[in-house]
Amino acid sequence: MSNNNKQNDKQFVKEITPQSEDFSRWYLDVIKKADLMDYAPVRGCIIFKPDGYEIWELMQRELDARFKETGHRNAYFPMFIPESFLQKEKDHIEGFNPELPWVTEAGGEKLEERLAIRPTSETMFGHMYARWIQSYRDLPVLINQWANVVRWEKRTQPFLRTSEFLWQEGHTAHETEEEARQETMQMLEIYRNFVENFLAIPVITGQKTPSEKFAGAVDTYSIEAIMKDGRAVQMGTSHYLGQNFAKAFEIQYLDRENTQQYVHTTSWGVSTRMIGAMIMVHGDDRGLQLPPKVAPTQVVMIPIGPAKSRDLVIARTDELFKKLKAAGIRTSVDDRAEMSPGWKFNEYEMRGIPIRVEIGPRDMENGQAVLVSRVSGEKRMIKQDELVSEVNQLLEEIHNQMYNNAKAYMDSHFYSINTLDELKQQLELERGFYLAGWCGSDACEQQVKEESGATSRNIPFNVQEHKTICLACNEASKHTVVFARAY
Amino acid sequence: MSNNNKQNDKQFVKEITPQSEDFSRWYLDVIKKADLMDYAPVRGCIIFKPDGYEIWELMQRELDARFKETGHRNAYFPMFIPESFLQKEKDHIEGFNPELPWVTEAGGEKLEERLAIRPTSETMFGHMYARWIQSYRDLPVLINQWANVVRWEKRTQPFLRTSEFLWQEGHTAHETEEEARQETMQMLEIYRNFVENFLAIPVITGQKTPSEKFAGAVDTYSIEAIMKDGRAVQMGTSHYLGQNFAKAFEIQYLDRENTQQYVHTTSWGVSTRMIGAMIMVHGDDRGLQLPPKVAPTQVVMIPIGPAKSRDLVIARTDELFKKLKAAGIRTSVDDRAEMSPGWKFNEYEMRGIPIRVEIGPRDMENGQAVLVSRVSGEKRMIKQDELVSEVNQLLEEIHNQMYNNAKAYMDSHFYSINTLDELKQQLELERGFYLAGWCGSDACEQQVKEESGATSRNIPFNVQEHKTICLACNEASKHTVVFARAY
Repeated sequence: MSNNNKQNDKQFVKEITPQSEDFSRWYLDVIKKADLMDYAPVRGCIIFKPDGYEIWELMQRELDARFKETGHRNAYFPMFIPESFLQKEKDHIEGFNPELPWVTEAGGEKLEERLAIRPTSETMFGHMYARWIQSYRDLPVLINQWANVVRWEKRTQPFLRTSEFLWQEGHTAHETEEEARQETMQMLEIYRNFVENFLAIPVITGQKTPSEKFAGAVDTYSIEAIMKDGRAVQMGTSHYLGQNFAKAFEIQYLDRENTQQYVHTTSWGVSTRMIGAMIMVHGDDRGLQLPPKVAPTQVVMIPIGPAKSRDLVIARTDELFKKLKAAGIRTSVDDRAEMSPGWKFNEYEMRGIPIRVEIGPRDMENGQAVLVSRVSGEKRMIKQDELVSEVNQLLEEIHNQMYNNAKAYMDSHFYSINTLDELKQQLELERGFYLAGWCGSDACEQQVKEESGATSRNIPFNVQEHKTICLACNEASKHTVVFARAY
Repeated sequence: MSNNNKQNDKQFVKEITPQSEDFSRWYLDVIKKADLMDYAPVRGCIIFKPDGYEIWELMQRELDARFKETGHRNAYFPMFIPESFLQKEKDHIEGFNPELPWVTEAGGEKLEERLAIRPTSETMFGHMYARWIQSYRDLPVLINQWANVVRWEKRTQPFLRTSEFLWQEGHTAHETEEEARQETMQMLEIYRNFVENFLAIPVITGQKTPSEKFAGAVDTYSIEAIMKDGRAVQMGTSHYLGQNFAKAFEIQYLDRENTQQYVHTTSWGVSTRMIGAMIMVHGDDRGLQLPPKVAPTQVVMIPIGPAKSRDLVIARTDELFKKLKAAGIRTSVDDRAEMSPGWKFNEYEMRGIPIRVEIGPRDMENGQAVLVSRVSGEKRMIKQDELVSEVNQLLEEIHNQMYNNAKAYMDSHFYSINTLDELKQQLELERGFYLAGWCGSDACEQQVKEESGATSRNIPFNVQEHKTICLACNEASKHTVVFARAY
C-alpha cells in the first residue's frame, strides 16, 4: 500500500481491459496494476514483487504446516544436476532435455561435465536416497524441498509459466507399492483440500493419461481448475514413480526377510503458478479478488468525512484497527488526506482486498461502521463493538461465496460430449471442461489435440456419467476423460 | 530422531575426533554424526538434511519477523544475471568474476549473452529499481529476498563456504546518504542482536577495511565471531553502497526541489554459514550444543526403569509431553525399548538437545522428574507439576550460560599486540583476535596477511584500548583493527 504503487500504475496501466474484450490482456493489466509482478530482463522470468510474493508466503505457510502434520520434513538439495544423473532415467531425460539450461563454465574454467539447473529433483534425491537407505528400518523417507526450478519453455506467461519459478517438491521412498500409492493419494488430497478450502478454487481430481503423465512416473494424478476464460490450469500433481528411479539410482534396502529390494518412490509439487490461476479464477473487470485466507491484507479501513472531524475519526479508526490486528486479522488503514475516499474504494477493489471498512463522523456518534464486501458489493452496517466477529464472519462468507461462484462457473462450463466434431463445435461457442469417452490409444488422444487444441486434463475420480464411446474413433471407451484447452 | 539417523551414523562416523586433536576433523565428524548434512555429488555443494535445515528454518523465522517489523517486505528476483549487468559496476565484477558459474546454453540453443548464476543481486535489483523509482515519493524501497546463491570458490567447507548456499539479501534505496547509512547500521544492529540473543554468540561489531569491503560498496560493516579453534567467522555484513550502483544502473529520482538525483542504496545479508559458526562456537567433544532458541528439539524426554513399570511411565511421559508441546516448547519423546537409556543419553548429548528429561518409576511415585542440562551437565530434580516453568527457566539459563561461555572464550582469546612479529609469535602459541594499530595502507595490511595468515576482521566500534602504532610499519596508526585467521 505504499506510494510506490501509484507511480508504477501510471508507468504501466491506466485502465484494465474488460475480460470479455481480451482475457489475456485483462490478466496482464491486472497483475501489473495490482503491482504483483514485473517482467525481468531475462527471457521468460519475472520479478515476484512484494504484493505478489506475500501471497506465495501465505500459501507456503499453510502448505508447509500441512506437510509437517503428515510427517514430512524440509531439506535443501543442490540446484545443479550433473548431466549423467539426468541420463539415468530414460523417460525423464527425454521429457526434460529440451527445457534445460546448462552451466558449462564456472570459476573461470570449462566444466568437465555440464551441469543442468534443476527442472525438478528426482535424480538428485534418487542419488542421495541410494546412499541413505540401507534397511527397511530407514523407511519411509519423507522429505520436501522449497526451491527455485527452471524450465526454459518457448511460451511463457507471468506466474503460470515462467522460465524460473518457485515451488515445493516432495520426494518420498517406501517399502511397498501400497504405501507409496497411499502417500501419492494423500498428497493429492492435501493439494485438493488446500486449493478448495484456502484458495476457494474447485478442482477436478483424477489421473493423467499416459501421454500427459510426468516424465519417469508410473502414474500421475492431478487437480485441474477452470479459469474464467474456460481454459484449464493444472494446479498440482502427485506422482507414483514405482521403482523407475529406484532402479535408475540403485535405491535398495534389505527387507524384513533380509532380501535386497528396490524402494517405491513418489514425488509431488505445486508452484507459484497457483497465484496466476487464483487471479484468473476470481478476478473481474474491476481487478483482483483475493480469497480471504490468502489475502495479504484482508481488511482495509478508510476513515471518511469532512476535514473538521478528521482527527477524531482517525483516532477511532486506529483503535478499531488495533482490535482487528490483535484478533489476527490482516488489516491496514489508509488515512491519507490527499486521496479521496472514492479513489481509495476503487484502488482497494482493484487490489482485491476482501473487506473495506468505512468509518465517518456519523458512525462515530452511532458506534457503527460499514463493511463492504469485495465479492458481492454488499454493504453491512455493524456495531463497532462487534467489529471483530462481524469481520470474521464476513471473511468466511466471502470465502464461501468465492468458492460457490467459481464452482457455478465450472459447473456451467462442464460439457458432456460424444464426438470430436461436437468438441470442436462446442469449443467454437465456449471453452470449458469436456467430458468424453476415450479408447485409451495415444493416437486418438493426439488426434483430439491436433484437431481441437484440447488436451486430456485427467481421468476424473468422480463423474456422474460414464461415457461409453471414444470421441475420436467411436470404438468402445476405456476411460471417461476431461478434455480442455489448457494453460 | 528417526531410525534413519542410526544407519547413517554407522555409515559415516563411529567416534568424534576430540577438538584438541584436530578441530577440523571434529567439525566434520560432528555435522555428519548429528546428521545435519551430506556431501553432494557436485563440487563444493552439500545437502542440507532435515536436522540441519530445520535450524535454518528457525533462523529464518526469527530474522524474517525482525525484517518485517522494520518495514521490509520480501520479494523474489531471478537468479540469472546477464553478463552485461555485472559489467556495469567495475569493482563488483572484479570482485565476483572469478567465482561465477555461467549458463551458456538453454532450451537446446546457445545463448546470445551468457547468464551468470547470482553470487548476490545488487545488479538485478539495481536494474529493476531504476524502473520502479521516479520520485522521492517512491522512496525508500525496502526489499529483502530469501534465495540460493552461488560462488564457485576453490576451497569449500560444509555450511561455512559452499558453492551453492542459502541466504537473505536485503536491498534498499533511499533519498539521502544519511537515511541509507541509518539503514545500514540498523540492519547491522539487527544481525548483532539476533546472533547474540538468539544464537548465543558474542560478536565484534565494526567496519571493514577498504581491502576487505564488499565489491562495489562505499563502506562495509560486519559482525565477527570467534570459533573454538581461535579462528574468526564473519557472521553477517551490511553495506552502504553510496551511489555506486545508482550511477551504474541509473537509479534516479525527482527530489523535493524537482531535481534529478541518484538514490543511495544499501545491501545486507546473512547466510547458512551461521549454522557452521554456531556449531564451532558451542560444540564440544561430546558433539553439538544447540542454543535453545534455534534447537529444533529443545527437550527430549526419556522414560527409564524396568520393563514391568514401562507402560505406566510411558503414559505419564506422554501426558507431560503434551503439556510441554502445548506451552510451545519443541519436545520429543524417545520411548524405544530396543535402545538403552545410556545409549539415548549419549545420542541426544551428541545431537546437542539442550534439556533431557528423565522419568522413572520412582519419579512417578514422588511426582518428580529429572532435568539434565546439556551445557552444564547439571541434574535438577523438579516437580512434575512445575515442569513447564522449570523447563522454560532452564532453557533461558542454558542460553545465558552458552553465551557467557562463548564470551569468556572470546575474552580470553583477545590479545592486544604492538608489532607484526608479536602477532606471528602469538599465533604460534594460540589463535584468537588480535587488536593492533594500523596506519591505513593496503601495503601494511597485505604484509600482515602474507606473513601471518591473519586478515583484518574489522575496525571495532567499541574498544577499550586505542592502539597508536601500525603493527607493520611502526608509523602512527590511523585505526585500531582486529586481526585474526579467518574461515
